Amino acid sequence: MKTHLFVVFLMAAMCVMAQQNVGFRDDGVVSPQVNDDGTVTFCLKADSASRVAVIGDWAEGGGRGEMVKGGDGVWRYTTPALPSEMYTYRFDIDGVVGLDPANPFMRRDVGNLFSIFYVEGGCADYYMVHDVPHGDVVATWYHSAASNADRRLSVYLPPMYGKEDKSYPVLYLLHGSGGDENAWVELGHVARIMDNLIARGEAEPMIVVIPNGNFGKQAAPGETSENLSYRPSMTKFMPGYKNGEYEASFTEIVNFIDGKYRTVADKQHRAVAGLSMGGFHSLYIMLNYPDKFDYVGLFSAGLMKDIDTSIATYSDIDGKLARLNEVGYKLFWIGIGDEDFLYELNKDFRTQLDADGIKYTWHESSRGHIWANWRQYLLLFVPQLFK
Amino acid sequence: MKTHLFVVFLMAAMCVMAQQNVGFRDDGVVSPQVNDDGTVTFCLKADSASRVAVIGDWAEGGGRGEMVKGGDGVWRYTTPALPSEMYTYRFDIDGVVGLDPANPFMRRDVGNLFSIFYVEGGCADYYMVHDVPHGDVVATWYHSAASNADRRLSVYLPPMYGKEDKSYPVLYLLHGSGGDENAWVELGHVARIMDNLIARGEAEPMIVVIPNGNFGKQAAPGETSENLSYRPSMTKFMPGYKNGEYEASFTEIVNFIDGKYRTVADKQHRAVAGLSMGGFHSLYIMLNYPDKFDYVGLFSAGLMKDIDTSIATYSDIDGKLARLNEVGYKLFWIGIGDEDFLYELNKDFRTQLDADGIKYTWHESSRGHIWANWRQYLLLFVPQLFK
Repeated sequence: MKTHLFVVFLMAAMCVMAQQNVGFRDDGVVSPQVNDDGTVTFCLKADSASRVAVIGDWAEGGGRGEMVKGGDGVWRYTTPALPSEMYTYRFDIDGVVGLDPANPFMRRDVGNLFSIFYVEGGCADYYMVHDVPHGDVVATWYHSAASNADRRLSVYLPPMYGKEDKSYPVLYLLHGSGGDENAWVELGHVARIMDNLIARGEAEPMIVVIPNGNFGKQAAPGETSENLSYRPSMTKFMPGYKNGEYEASFTEIVNFIDGKYRTVADKQHRAVAGLSMGGFHSLYIMLNYPDKFDYVGLFSAGLMKDIDTSIATYSDIDGKLARLNEVGYKLFWIGIGDEDFLYELNKDFRTQLDADGIKYTWHESSRGHIWANWRQYLLLFVPQLFK
Repeated sequence: MKTHLFVVFLMAAMCVMAQQNVGFRDDGVVSPQVNDDGTVTFCLKADSASRVAVIGDWAEGGGRGEMVKGGDGVWRYTTPALPSEMYTYRFDIDGVVGLDPANPFMRRDVGNLFSIFYVEGGCADYYMVHDVPHGDVVATWYHSAASNADRRLSVYLPPMYGKEDKSYPVLYLLHGSGGDENAWVELGHVARIMDNLIARGEAEPMIVVIPNGNFGKQAAPGETSENLSYRPSMTKFMPGYKNGEYEASFTEIVNFIDGKYRTVADKQHRAVAGLSMGGFHSLYIMLNYPDKFDYVGLFSAGLMKDIDTSIATYSDIDGKLARLNEVGYKLFWIGIGDEDFLYELNKDFRTQLDADGIKYTWHESSRGHIWANWRQYLLLFVPQLFK
C-alpha cells in the first residue's frame, strides 16, 4: 500500500485549527446555562475585570444583572425564572459591551450583535428547530424600476413546494426601521415558525416574502456594493425615507414573486404585515392596493405624523379607508404591547377605524417595542390567513 | 384630516431603538479604518482596560498588535500595508477575547466569531459585492437514506438560472473539519466569487452545491433539532466521522440536486472540490465515482493516515487511481501553501500520483492552512471548469 507514503495527520490539523477557531472549547466555561427551573446562569472568565454585568431583553427596558466573581475567576449571574422565549444579551465588561465569548450563537439587530439563548416550553418551541419537514429559504434579487436598482429579498418556500402540483398563497412580511431582508429570517425566526406551524397543522402552507423596506438601499448592510462602508443605521438616515415610493412601487415585488414562484396571484391569497415602520408600510400598501390584499397585520405599527400628505401614497387616508370598506377584506389585525411607547397612538388609530366603520381585530399584549412581541404576533397572525 | 388624531412619533421610536440597537453609532469610534496606503487602524474605547491587543489573520500564525491608549481613552493599532484580502480579527482586552464592538460585520469560523474587513485592489474585489447580476442562494434540505435523516445544504444558482431555457453544470464544494454548509457561503464568499467571475466572463455559469460533510449531523450548529446544545466542534468529535458513509452516499446528494434543479446530469458537467477534510472527501468521492465527475480539486487536502482500509470507500487506492486513469477526467487540481503543515505530505501524494501516472495540476501558494488560500484556490479552480 503506497497510501502510507503520503500520510497526512489530520489529528495535527485538528489541534492547529482548534487553537485558531474553537478556543471557546478550551476555557471550561459554558455560558449561558439554561437551568431546569427556567432560570439562566451566565458565566464569564475575566480574571482582571473589575466590574461585569449582563444586559439582556428579559425585562422591560432590558434586564441587567451584576455578575459576581468566584474564586475560580469566573463571573456569574443567574436570572429569575424566565418565560419561554428567544432572548438576547450582551456582557458589559468594565464598560466595553459585547458578546458572550463562550456562546457562538448570535443575532444582529440593526447595528449591534447580541448573544442568544432559548427558554423552552412555550412560544420558543416554535422558534427552535424540530425534526419536521423544512422549507427552503432563498436569498434572491428583483429589479426595481422605481429605484432603478436590483434589490435583495428573502423568500420562504413551504416544505411541500415543488413536490406537489400546487400553487401557494403569499404573506409579505415587512421589517422595522433599521431592519432589512434578513431581520425576520434571523431575529424573527420566520422559517422555523412556518415549518412548525405547518407541521402542527396550525397554518396553511404559504410562501413568505421578506423584502427590504429601506428604499434607498439595495440590500442589508454588507450585501450591497457599498460593502462594509454601509454601516447599519435607522432608516430615517437613508435616502428615499418616507417618500412613498416603496409602498407605491410594492407591486414590483408582487409581480416579481408571482412571476418567479408558484403563487395564487389574487387578492384572496395575499397578506401584508409588518412591525413598527413595516406596520406603517403595510397600512399604506393595503390602503393603496385594497384590490391586491385580503389580509393586513400591523405589529406595533409606527404610523407617522410628519408625512407629506401631498404625496399620493399618503394622501386622503379617510377616502382610502372608505374604499377599503367598499372593496372588502378578510382581516385587519392590530397587535400592540401595553408598555409600547406607541400604545396610546395605536389606540387613537383604533378610534379612527371605529369612526370610519373599519372592522379590525385588536390584540393587546404585555411589554413593548420588542422582537419577543413581534414573533408572538406572527404566531397569532399566520394561523388566521388563507383559511 | 383625522390623520392627526392617531399620530405616532417615529422619531421617538428611532431614539428608543437607537439606544437599544445602534449604540455603536454613539461612541464616536470607527473601527477598523482601512487606510489608502493599505494599512489598517483598529480603535477601541476601553477606558479602564490595562492591556489591549488585536489578533488577526494577516500574518502566518495570526497577526498580533499591541494597542496603545491615547489621551482620549481610545486604544489604537495600525498594521503594516496589507495585500488585498478579506481579513478576520478579534480584540484581546485584559485576556477576554472577542469581537470589535464598533464593527457590526463578523463571520463564524467553527466555534468562534471574528470581526472582518476587506483590503481592496486584488482578490478581495472578488469577495465584495459589485453591481453585477446576482445569483440566488438557497438553504434547502435533502433526505439521506444512508443516515436516515433530513440534511441541510446550500445551493448557489447563477444569475440567469430560470430566466433562460438552459441547464447548468454543477460544482460540489466541500468544507473542512468543523465547517458546515454555511462555511463556503459565509467565510468562503462563494456567491460573490461566482457572481463576479461570471460577470467578468471568467467562469462558466454553474450551480454550486455546498453540502454538510459532518455525516453525523443534519446541519450547521443551531440549525438542527439539537438547537443551541450542538456547540460547534471539529468533525472528529462527531458520530460517523471517517466511516466512509458520507463519500459512499454522496450520490444521494447528486441525485437530489439533479432532481430539484436544472442540471446537466453527466460526468462532463460535474466537479467536486473541497478544503482540508473536504479535500479528503473530494478525493474519495472522485476515486469511488470516477464515472460521475470530470473535475476534482484538493485545497490543502487533509488526507488521512489512520483510515480503515477495510472500508470499501477507502480500500485499494492504487486500483482506484488506475481505474480513474482508464475512465479519464478533465482536471485533477491540487493547491497547497508552502507554509501549510500538510505541505510535505501533499508533496508525497504528488509523488504517488507521478508513480501511478496520474496527470494533475499542482498549485503552490504562500502561507498555510487558512481561508485566504482556500478562497484564492477557488478563484483559480473555477475558471478551469466546464470549458
